Amino acid sequence: MPGKLQAIPLGGLGEFGMNCMAFRFGDDIIVIDAGLMFPEAELLGVDIVVPDISYLIENRQKVRGIILTHGHEDHIGGLPWILSELKVPVWGTEFTLAYVEDKLDEHGLLDDADLREIRAGESFRVGSFSIHPIRVTHSLVDCVALAIHTPLGIVIHTGDFKVDPTPTDNHLFDLHSFAEYGKQNVLALFQDSTNVERKGYTPSERAVRRKFDEVFAHTRRRLFISCFSSSVHRIKLAVELAQEHERKVTFVGRSMNNSAEIAEDLGYLEIPDGLIINPGEMKNFPPEKVCVMISGTQGEPMSALSRAAVDNHKHAKIEKGDTVVLSSRIIPGNEKTIYRMIDHLFRREAYVIYEDGSSPPVHVSGHASQEELKLVINLVKPRYFIPIHGEYRQLKLHADMAAAMRGSVGKVMLIESGDVLEFDELGARKVARINVGRVCIDSGNRTDVVEDLIIKDRRHLSEDGIVLPIIAINKLTGNVETTPEIVTRGFNPGENGLLEGARRIVEDTLAFSSEEEKADYGVIKEKIRADLKRYISKQTQRRPLIMPVILEI
Amino acid sequence: MPGKLQAIPLGGLGEFGMNCMAFRFGDDIIVIDAGLMFPEAELLGVDIVVPDISYLIENRQKVRGIILTHGHEDHIGGLPWILSELKVPVWGTEFTLAYVEDKLDEHGLLDDADLREIRAGESFRVGSFSIHPIRVTHSLVDCVALAIHTPLGIVIHTGDFKVDPTPTDNHLFDLHSFAEYGKQNVLALFQDSTNVERKGYTPSERAVRRKFDEVFAHTRRRLFISCFSSSVHRIKLAVELAQEHERKVTFVGRSMNNSAEIAEDLGYLEIPDGLIINPGEMKNFPPEKVCVMISGTQGEPMSALSRAAVDNHKHAKIEKGDTVVLSSRIIPGNEKTIYRMIDHLFRREAYVIYEDGSSPPVHVSGHASQEELKLVINLVKPRYFIPIHGEYRQLKLHADMAAAMRGSVGKVMLIESGDVLEFDELGARKVARINVGRVCIDSGNRTDVVEDLIIKDRRHLSEDGIVLPIIAINKLTGNVETTPEIVTRGFNPGENGLLEGARRIVEDTLAFSSEEEKADYGVIKEKIRADLKRYISKQTQRRPLIMPVILEI
Repeated sequence: MPGKLQAIPLGGLGEFGMNCMAFRFGDDIIVIDAGLMFPEAELLGVDIVVPDISYLIENRQKVRGIILTHGHEDHIGGLPWILSELKVPVWGTEFTLAYVEDKLDEHGLLDDADLREIRAGESFRVGSFSIHPIRVTHSLVDCVALAIHTPLGIVIHTGDFKVDPTPTDNHLFDLHSFAEYGKQNVLALFQDSTNVERKGYTPSERAVRRKFDEVFAHTRRRLFISCFSSSVHRIKLAVELAQEHERKVTFVGRSMNNSAEIAEDLGYLEIPDGLIINPGEMKNFPPEKVCVMISGTQGEPMSALSRAAVDNHKHAKIEKGDTVVLSSRIIPGNEKTIYRMIDHLFRREAYVIYEDGSSPPVHVSGHASQEELKLVINLVKPRYFIPIHGEYRQLKLHADMAAAMRGSVGKVMLIESGDVLEFDELGARKVARINVGRVCIDSGNRTDVVEDLIIKDRRHLSEDGIVLPIIAINKLTGNVETTPEIVTRGFNPGENGLLEGARRIVEDTLAFSSEEEKADYGVIKEKIRADLKRYISKQTQRRPLIMPVILEI
Repeated sequence: MPGKLQAIPLGGLGEFGMNCMAFRFGDDIIVIDAGLMFPEAELLGVDIVVPDISYLIENRQKVRGIILTHGHEDHIGGLPWILSELKVPVWGTEFTLAYVEDKLDEHGLLDDADLREIRAGESFRVGSFSIHPIRVTHSLVDCVALAIHTPLGIVIHTGDFKVDPTPTDNHLFDLHSFAEYGKQNVLALFQDSTNVERKGYTPSERAVRRKFDEVFAHTRRRLFISCFSSSVHRIKLAVELAQEHERKVTFVGRSMNNSAEIAEDLGYLEIPDGLIINPGEMKNFPPEKVCVMISGTQGEPMSALSRAAVDNHKHAKIEKGDTVVLSSRIIPGNEKTIYRMIDHLFRREAYVIYEDGSSPPVHVSGHASQEELKLVINLVKPRYFIPIHGEYRQLKLHADMAAAMRGSVGKVMLIESGDVLEFDELGARKVARINVGRVCIDSGNRTDVVEDLIIKDRRHLSEDGIVLPIIAINKLTGNVETTPEIVTRGFNPGENGLLEGARRIVEDTLAFSSEEEKADYGVIKEKIRADLKRYISKQTQRRPLIMPVILEI
């Protein structure tokens, strides 16, 4: 069979988040996942980051659709952005699509969207690809890996997974399908690298039950439980235990409510009549009869839990002797914010239970550790192995691990976002690079892209503030009409006459400029900027952003 | 014995870093430690943070001096700031003072400083206090706890410590002195809370030797080792192993060089002749014969290791197959920067060894875990126990732990920075609060305090940018002389006529204002600000800093 298959990661390989991978055969392109990335602190004023999809836009006639592996933000969060650029169908499982619908609705994109439900085990065709979704386990429900049948062979994309032997919904990781494929000479395995640094096995979701049990048994007053709102396993567990321990359950926070609603609608959560109360009803029940499921594990400033921690939530009041469980990991970068929130909870004299390495764990990861990764590799026995979903070191460690598995892996290819990996009858190789990158979005506006220049300005402003020399020039005579005004913000000029000196500098610059220069505002602004920069930097060792303004009167 | 003893934490209780504690008896005040805190990311443009010492300045006649427990930045880093405000003697051990000298010299303060060396076991008097330094073990050398003999009884301040049974310099933790005090009815124990969340014992510094041994044995090319520059134990270990494994040692980075020099001068490090080479000589030796001690474990952008990682260091070139050891912890908040550096090292195809929870450890903590904390409490048996050095949750957990030790602890007092804890013959209680807080310093200038307002402005600028409506008013006629100019920075007005609209808003505001309002620039600016804010927020959902400027012509 002639032809070439290309795998083109648009995001998530060599960076954390915004997972997005295109596969192309001839004139058919499919896209697996469309995630976002939460911005680093230095991307000031940026709310989310999504992959640059110019490759897809340039080839818009060929893009047949997007297939989602599961409903986490780093796999679906970029959809509104991508769908506003490309009108293509989106395939996903029932639960994943429920999240997608919510998200698209929020952005006013739902009516135009073409969403198609898939089920684990039921193959479907997209262009020249036939795709077989395989059930995997993860920290949320209804997740799939994808076996993509191409004219050149079978490619397996794991999505995110762990091999949980005892998932709370009893929907097992489909070892048998992976084993079956292992006999069929799989061309390539693309596997999640997130936890490749962890030895051994990731504990089952059920390991958390022992800790929750303990907490429910020992809590004498109100019990607050916070987890990622998509952690349906965790919500289910809390609801079950609340019932056993005769506590009413209330959901506080928008995302927690949404998630619980979706989970209940789709049958992942069975909530007996009368168990749920409204947040406003909490006050009518004795503290020992209430369990509050609350959003905000990462200390997000506007989240329900953060507000409750500083006694600024209408219903969720945390009082002396209450217990607060943070059933989640601390996402790197969020430590300070989370610990600040925990400190506030301690100040309210609450007992706070958070991940501290003790056993049984209050949280378990959703990603496969080394032994699980090896298990899947040994089941699939691919000719080519490609690590996905990870920063460079994780991809590299994963590649090294697989390269050592000579019994089951042919060749390992280490690629990053933007690399074009091409397969043909002779083998596989990197053949090109395409433009990829981060698009920074300011969520004030649905698709308001924040340009690099703006971010750079903000960073500059944030470090050293701004100085604006303002002059008025009479447009008829070309005369400077008044003493220059120097305005500063975020910059302390001190009390040593710096502003007066700066004013003199600007006057000097004007005095020593020709009429011609003064008539060319670009030139005169640049001269003022340069002179003032030199002066301020000499006087203060600081380099504020200097922005001359000419007012034409 | 009449009189009252006050303990007044000025920093470090309820926050991480800037440890500083005053003890006052009558007209005598002594200060234990004078640390700094590294600023959080949200303190934009701030380089270091030191405690507000207005209490000491108000009582400057009474301050008898500063006593240092050890040479870490969070215990000595605020000295230049404090000594430039208060001329008082500083006591510290030989090694601690060597660091202090370096620091004061850098700030041009050394000539005026009155530094007094102390030794473990040798008591000295300061005002009405007699102070007995007790040898403790920690991650650097020559550290002491302080037994402070006051007219009201003995108070023990542990400084930072762990109970290391096998310190690399064989200077043992002085259990005997602590035991001796335990028989003398100690009034109060003030104990380090840093690691109170950790169960068990902190491993000895020597535990790292096994890992280093392994690394030296397996490394085939250049070996780079990075640790905190003050980790003399770690440097000593590396130097010893380099000699055994026949590698030359070179120190790269200013702080690493300083530290090694001090350690060698004071006899903590014995370096055989010919072992050390200059960084420039590295290229003359085969890669397997070189060990590079390099600064920059935290990925600090300008550090030697960060620069080497992106191939931007003159001498430290990292090549394929080299090994880089990060023998340090990841300080919370630095994860992203450190992992970014590690990724760069992986891209250079170096083997990177960092703390990943595996055993033997590549780094061990310098702070006591729970069992060590309990050991010291049981040795000292204080009437009052006060947790120090920790965020609120750590102080609280430490207080709870001690409160449960009824056999050895009288009463536990939980205080925070700014609380005045008073002891007299009847007992102890919080009697007042003094002003404390963070002073933000911009190291461009030695003592250039960055005010809260400036930081607030910078934060605002950094998130949403700035919009400046500028109008020219004729000061004779009061007329507005030209169309308002709208200037923005760090804020994207887009292409939908936002600026034009804003201009119209300002014109309307001016048109609907009375002559009186227009003559009062404060009033008219505020009106413009309010109207423009409403308009921009409605159009864009953003809230840039709005700063009307009136140019009087």
